[in-house]
Amino acid sequence: MELQQLVSSIAADVTPDGAVADYIPALARIDPHAFGLAVATLDGEVFGAGDFETPFSIQSISKAFMLALALSQGDDVWSRVGREPSGSPFNSLVQLETEQGIPRNPFINAGALVVTDHLGYGAADKLLKFLRRESGNPDVDVDPEVAKSELDHSDRNRALAHFMASYGNMRNNVDVVLHEYVRQCSIEMSCADLARATLFLARHGVRNDGTRLLAVSGAKRVNAVMLTCGTYDAAGQFAYRVGLPGKSGVGGGIIAVVPGKCAIAVWSPGLDARGNSVAGLDALDRFTTLTGWSVF
Amino acid sequence: MELQQLVSSIAADVTPDGAVADYIPALARIDPHAFGLAVATLDGEVFGAGDFETPFSIQSISKAFMLALALSQGDDVWSRVGREPSGSPFNSLVQLETEQGIPRNPFINAGALVVTDHLGYGAADKLLKFLRRESGNPDVDVDPEVAKSELDHSDRNRALAHFMASYGNMRNNVDVVLHEYVRQCSIEMSCADLARATLFLARHGVRNDGTRLLAVSGAKRVNAVMLTCGTYDAAGQFAYRVGLPGKSGVGGGIIAVVPGKCAIAVWSPGLDARGNSVAGLDALDRFTTLTGWSVF
Amino acid sequence: MELQQLVSSIAADVTPDGAVADYIPALARIDPHAFGLAVATLDGEVFGAGDFETPFSIQSISKAFMLALALSQGDDVWSRVGREPSGSPFNSLVQLETEQGIPRNPFINAGALVVTDHLGYGAADKLLKFLRRESGNPDVDVDPEVAKSELDHSDRNRALAHFMASYGNMRNNVDVVLHEYVRQCSIEMSCADLARATLFLARHGVRNDGTRLLAVSGAKRVNAVMLTCGTYDAAGQFAYRVGLPGKSGVGGGIIAVVPGKCAIAVWSPGLDARGNSVAGLDALDRFTTLTGWSVF
Amino acid sequence: MELQQLVSSIAADVTPDGAVADYIPALARIDPHAFGLAVATLDGEVFGAGDFETPFSIQSISKAFMLALALSQGDDVWSRVGREPSGSPFNSLVQLETEQGIPRNPFINAGALVVTDHLGYGAADKLLKFLRRESGNPDVDVDPEVAKSELDHSDRNRALAHFMASYGNMRNNVDVVLHEYVRQCSIEMSCADLARATLFLARHGVRNDGTRLLAVSGAKRVNAVMLTCGTYDAAGQFAYRVGLPGKSGVGGGIIAVVPGKCAIAVWSPGLDARGNSVAGLDALDRFTTLTGWSVF
Repeated sequence: MELQQLVSSIAADVTPDGAVADYIPALARIDPHAFGLAVATLDGEVFGAGDFETPFSIQSISKAFMLALALSQGDDVWSRVGREPSGSPFNSLVQLETEQGIPRNPFINAGALVVTDHLGYGAADKLLKFLRRESGNPDVDVDPEVAKSELDHSDRNRALAHFMASYGNMRNNVDVVLHEYVRQCSIEMSCADLARATLFLARHGVRNDGTRLLAVSGAKRVNAVMLTCGTYDAAGQFAYRVGLPGKSGVGGGIIAVVPGKCAIAVWSPGLDARGNSVAGLDALDRFTTLTGWSVF
Repeated sequence: MELQQLVSSIAADVTPDGAVADYIPALARIDPHAFGLAVATLDGEVFGAGDFETPFSIQSISKAFMLALALSQGDDVWSRVGREPSGSPFNSLVQLETEQGIPRNPFINAGALVVTDHLGYGAADKLLKFLRRESGNPDVDVDPEVAKSELDHSDRNRALAHFMASYGNMRNNVDVVLHEYVRQCSIEMSCADLARATLFLARHGVRNDGTRLLAVSGAKRVNAVMLTCGTYDAAGQFAYRVGLPGKSGVGGGIIAVVPGKCAIAVWSPGLDARGNSVAGLDALDRFTTLTGWSVF
Repeated sequence: MELQQLVSSIAADVTPDGAVADYIPALARIDPHAFGLAVATLDGEVFGAGDFETPFSIQSISKAFMLALALSQGDDVWSRVGREPSGSPFNSLVQLETEQGIPRNPFINAGALVVTDHLGYGAADKLLKFLRRESGNPDVDVDPEVAKSELDHSDRNRALAHFMASYGNMRNNVDVVLHEYVRQCSIEMSCADLARATLFLARHGVRNDGTRLLAVSGAKRVNAVMLTCGTYDAAGQFAYRVGLPGKSGVGGGIIAVVPGKCAIAVWSPGLDARGNSVAGLDALDRFTTLTGWSVF
Repeated sequence: MELQQLVSSIAADVTPDGAVADYIPALARIDPHAFGLAVATLDGEVFGAGDFETPFSIQSISKAFMLALALSQGDDVWSRVGREPSGSPFNSLVQLETEQGIPRNPFINAGALVVTDHLGYGAADKLLKFLRRESGNPDVDVDPEVAKSELDHSDRNRALAHFMASYGNMRNNVDVVLHEYVRQCSIEMSCADLARATLFLARHGVRNDGTRLLAVSGAKRVNAVMLTCGTYDAAGQFAYRVGLPGKSGVGGGIIAVVPGKCAIAVWSPGLDARGNSVAGLDALDRFTTLTGWSVF
C-alpha cells in the first residue's frame, strides 16, 4: 500500500475518543473529534489526512525538541537531569526529593524545567526559530492566550522549580524559567509542520537543509529517551503497542520516529487517563501494524 | 568487519570490572575477570570469543524466557502484571502497595513471581525443556547448590509473594512458587547456549526448529518490555548506550536482541551499582557502535 | 457526679455506629450495636455499664500488654523497634523499607511482630498468664476460631515478617512468630477484665498484687507510646479529642489510662474509617470532658 | 527542692553539645555552648538559670503561638491542615502530595505556611503584639538580618506554598505568605520571655492579664498537638523521654507545658540530628524526672 493510501485509510478507520485537557480554558474549548495524521519521508515529502494542516497546541511535544537543542550544545545537561523512566505520574515531587533535586528524565515537567533553565533566557525563541526552519513554516508561533493561561496555572511547576532551586539545580531566576517554559509549551503547529520538524531524528541528526544538528549517536539517544520516557506513565504501553520512539502532549498531539524511514505526527485532542491521545495512539498502533515498521 | 573478527576484537578490548554479586556464597566465588561473548545469527551460526562456552548462573535472564512461555499460552498474564518501567530498585515493595498487588512489570522480582505462579507447578521444568531445545544443549540444568542457597536467602521474595497473596494475586502456595522461582534463576548456561536460545526473539517468534512460539506481535512485545524494563533501574541508560532490547542477571550475563538480525549473549561477573555487568554493558555498547545495529 | 453515675450516663448517651471489621468471618458476625464501658480505680474497684462483662476479641489492644511484658525484661527491644508515630496506615511496608527493617513503633503490625519475636516461643502463653492474673479472671483465653481465621488471613503479616527477616530483624522462624502473634490477638476479654488488667499503667508500674512489673519511668514510657502511637493513623485525633494514653483494636475495644487515677476499657464493634470504635471514641471523649481528666 | 534550686542545679549539670544550625549565616554564628533555662509558674513568677535572659531566634517555636492565634479565631483552620504526626522529616513533600495539599499538622513547615496564610496579611505583627503582651517585654522584635536571610533561603518553603496553591489551599499570594512566615520565625526572645508567653497553655487558655485566649478545650488541644507533633520527627522520643507538650525550633529553643503548673523555656543552640536542642532535651528530661511532672 502506498503511504498516502495508508495514511488516508488509518484516518478513515480511527474514532476520536476521550476527554479534552481542561486545566486551562484555551485547551478545553478544542473540538474533541478533530483528527489529523501526517507522515514525512526522509526527502521531506509529507503525506497527510484529516486535519493534518490545522495548528494545535504542541504542549509537551516541545520537550523533545528542547532536549535536542540542549544536546546540540554538548552533553553536560546530563549532569542535571537523568534519563530513566519515572515510574510515577509526570509531575510527581516524590522522586525529586529522593533523588536530591535531579529529575529522572527530561520529559517529566521537572526535567523539562531543568532543560529550559539549561538553555537559559531566550530558550523559547531558540526553539521557535528552529521549528520555523525545520517545518518550513515561518508562521509557527506561540499562542499568547494559551501561554498566559499556562502562566496563571503554574503553581505546580513553580513548586518544582523552587524545589530544584533548593537543591542548587536552577541557574536562572524561577520567574524567567517559567516564562520560557510556558511559551515553548504554547507553540502551535500542525501535524504537517511537526512531521517535517521531526525528520532530523529519523535522519540520525541531519536537518532538512543537510546540516547536522546532532551526531548520529546523539540522535539515537534522543530516540532512546523518547522510547523509554516519552509518553508519561505509559511508556511501556507505548513501546508495547506502537514500538517507536515517540513524544506526546496534552494538546492531543504525538510525534513518532521510524529511524532511517520517516517521521510521523498525529493529533486528536481526546485523551486517555494517562494524558495521551486516544485516537493518536490507535493511529500509530495501526501504522506500525500495517507497515511492520516498529523498531522491534 | 566480519562478525567473528568483531566479536574477538570486542573481547580483546573490554576490561572486566566491578564487584561480583555476593548475597549467596555460590555466586561470590566466581572469578570477576571472566568474560565471554557470543553472537548467534538467524540461521543458528554462533560467533564467540573469550569464555563464551563456560556455563554461568543466568539468574534474572530467565525472566525473559518465562515471560515468553507465559505469553505463548495467551495474553491473560497481563491482567496480573503491568508492563511499565518501575522507576525504583528492582525489589521495592512501595509500588506494589500503591498498585494493589499488581507488579509494575514481569522483570522486577514481584512480577517474575507472578509469571512463575501463572505458569504454575512445573514452571522451572517447562523452562529447562525449552532452553535445552533452543540451545541444542541437553546438559543445560539447574545448579542445585545455587538453588538451595537462593532458597535459604528468599525472605525478601517470600515477603513479596505473601504481599501479593494478600491482594489475591497468587494462585499457588507461596512455597511452591518460591521453589519454581529459585530453580529457574539457578539454571546454568553458556553465552553460546543463551545466544542460540534467544534467537526466537530476533526471528519474530520463530523457534530454531521453524515452529512458532509467539506471534510476530508477541515477539515484538517481549522485545519492547525488555527494552523498557530489562535492566533493573538502568533501562533508560541501557536504551541510551546500547539501544537494543536486553535482559540482564546478577550472575553477570546479559542477552540482547537485534530484531531480524541476531541474538547476543555476553557474560562478565563484575557488576555496577545497579546490578548490571560492567564489561557486558561495555561490550554491547561497542557492538552497536561498531555495527550501527541499535534499533534507533 | 459519682463514677458509677458518670459511666451509666455515658452508656445511655452514646450511639453505636460504624462498620464491624469483616476481614475474618468470626469478627464480621458481631452485633454492631453492642456497647460496654468499665472504669477501674486504683484500688481495683470497677464501675461498669452496658455490655461491660461481655468478652470480645481484644485484637491490637494486646500490643500494649506485649510491649509492657517485653520492657519488663529490659530495654533492649528498642534496638529492634522505634517509638515514633508512623504517619501512615498501620500495616504499611513503605516505612519499613526506608528504615531498613526497623518498624516505626511497637503498635503497628510490623512492630508488634518484632515484640512477639522478642518475647519468643511461648509469648502468647506469657501474655495469657499475665492477663488472667491482672484481670482476676482465670477464664480469659484465646478464641481458637478467631486464631485459626487470623492465621488463614495472615499473608500481609507474613510478608512483613519475611521482609524484616531479610533485614536480619527476626530471631525466630516466621511460622512460630505468626502463631504466637495470632493467638495473642485472638484473646477474649470483657471491659471489666481489661480495665483491671490495665491498672498497672495507671499505678505507674505496680500490679494488682502490689508487686512491680515496670519501673515508674517504664510505665510512663508505655503511656507515652500509647498516646503518640496507640490508635493507628488517628493518634493525633485521639490526643486532641480524648487526651489520654490509649490503645485500640479492630474488635472495637479501646483501653485508656488516667495516670494516678484509673484505667478505662470501652467496647463497641462499629469502627470508623481508621479502624477505631466510633462509640468507644465518643465515650472516651465524653469521659474526659465530664471529668476534666485529660492529661493536658 | 525549690524551683530556683532545681533550675540552677539542672543548668549546672547539662553539657551543651551538637551542631548549630548553619543553613543561614545569622544562625551559624551563635555560640554553641550557650544555655538558658526558665520556668514560669502560674502566677507569673520566673525562675531562671544560665543565659535565660539572652534573646535568641525562636524559629519554629513561633508555630505553637501561631496555631493558638488561629484557633482563637475559630476552628475552621482544621479544614486546611490536619493534626496527625507526620512520620517523616519536617519539610517532606511526599505526604503533601499523597494528601492533596493538606499538610499533616500545623507544625511541619507546610502546615505553618497554611496557618500563616489563614491569619493572612499582618500575621507576624499580630504575633509580635501577642508575644510582647504575654512576655511583658515591649522590646520583643524581629531580627531583620535573620528575616532577610530566611527569605533568601526560602526556595523549599516557596515550593511547599506553590504546591499547596496548586491544590487550592493558599488564599494569599505566595510572596505575602512567605514574608509573614519568615518574620515570625525571626522573632528574638529570651527563655524568660518565652516561659511567660507560654503560660496561657499551662493556664488552660487564660492569658497573663486574666482574659481568655482559648477555651479550656482549645488550650488542651494545642497541648495535644504539641505533644504528638511538636518536635519534628522526634515527637515519640520527646513524649517518651520528657512526657510534656513541647515545641522546638532550630535556633535551639524548646518550650514545654506542665498543664496546671508551669511553663518552661530552655535554650542551647547545639542540635541533634533531628533538629532539636541536645542540652535542651536533656534539661527537660532531668526536669520531669526530678519533679515527676510528666503528664504520664
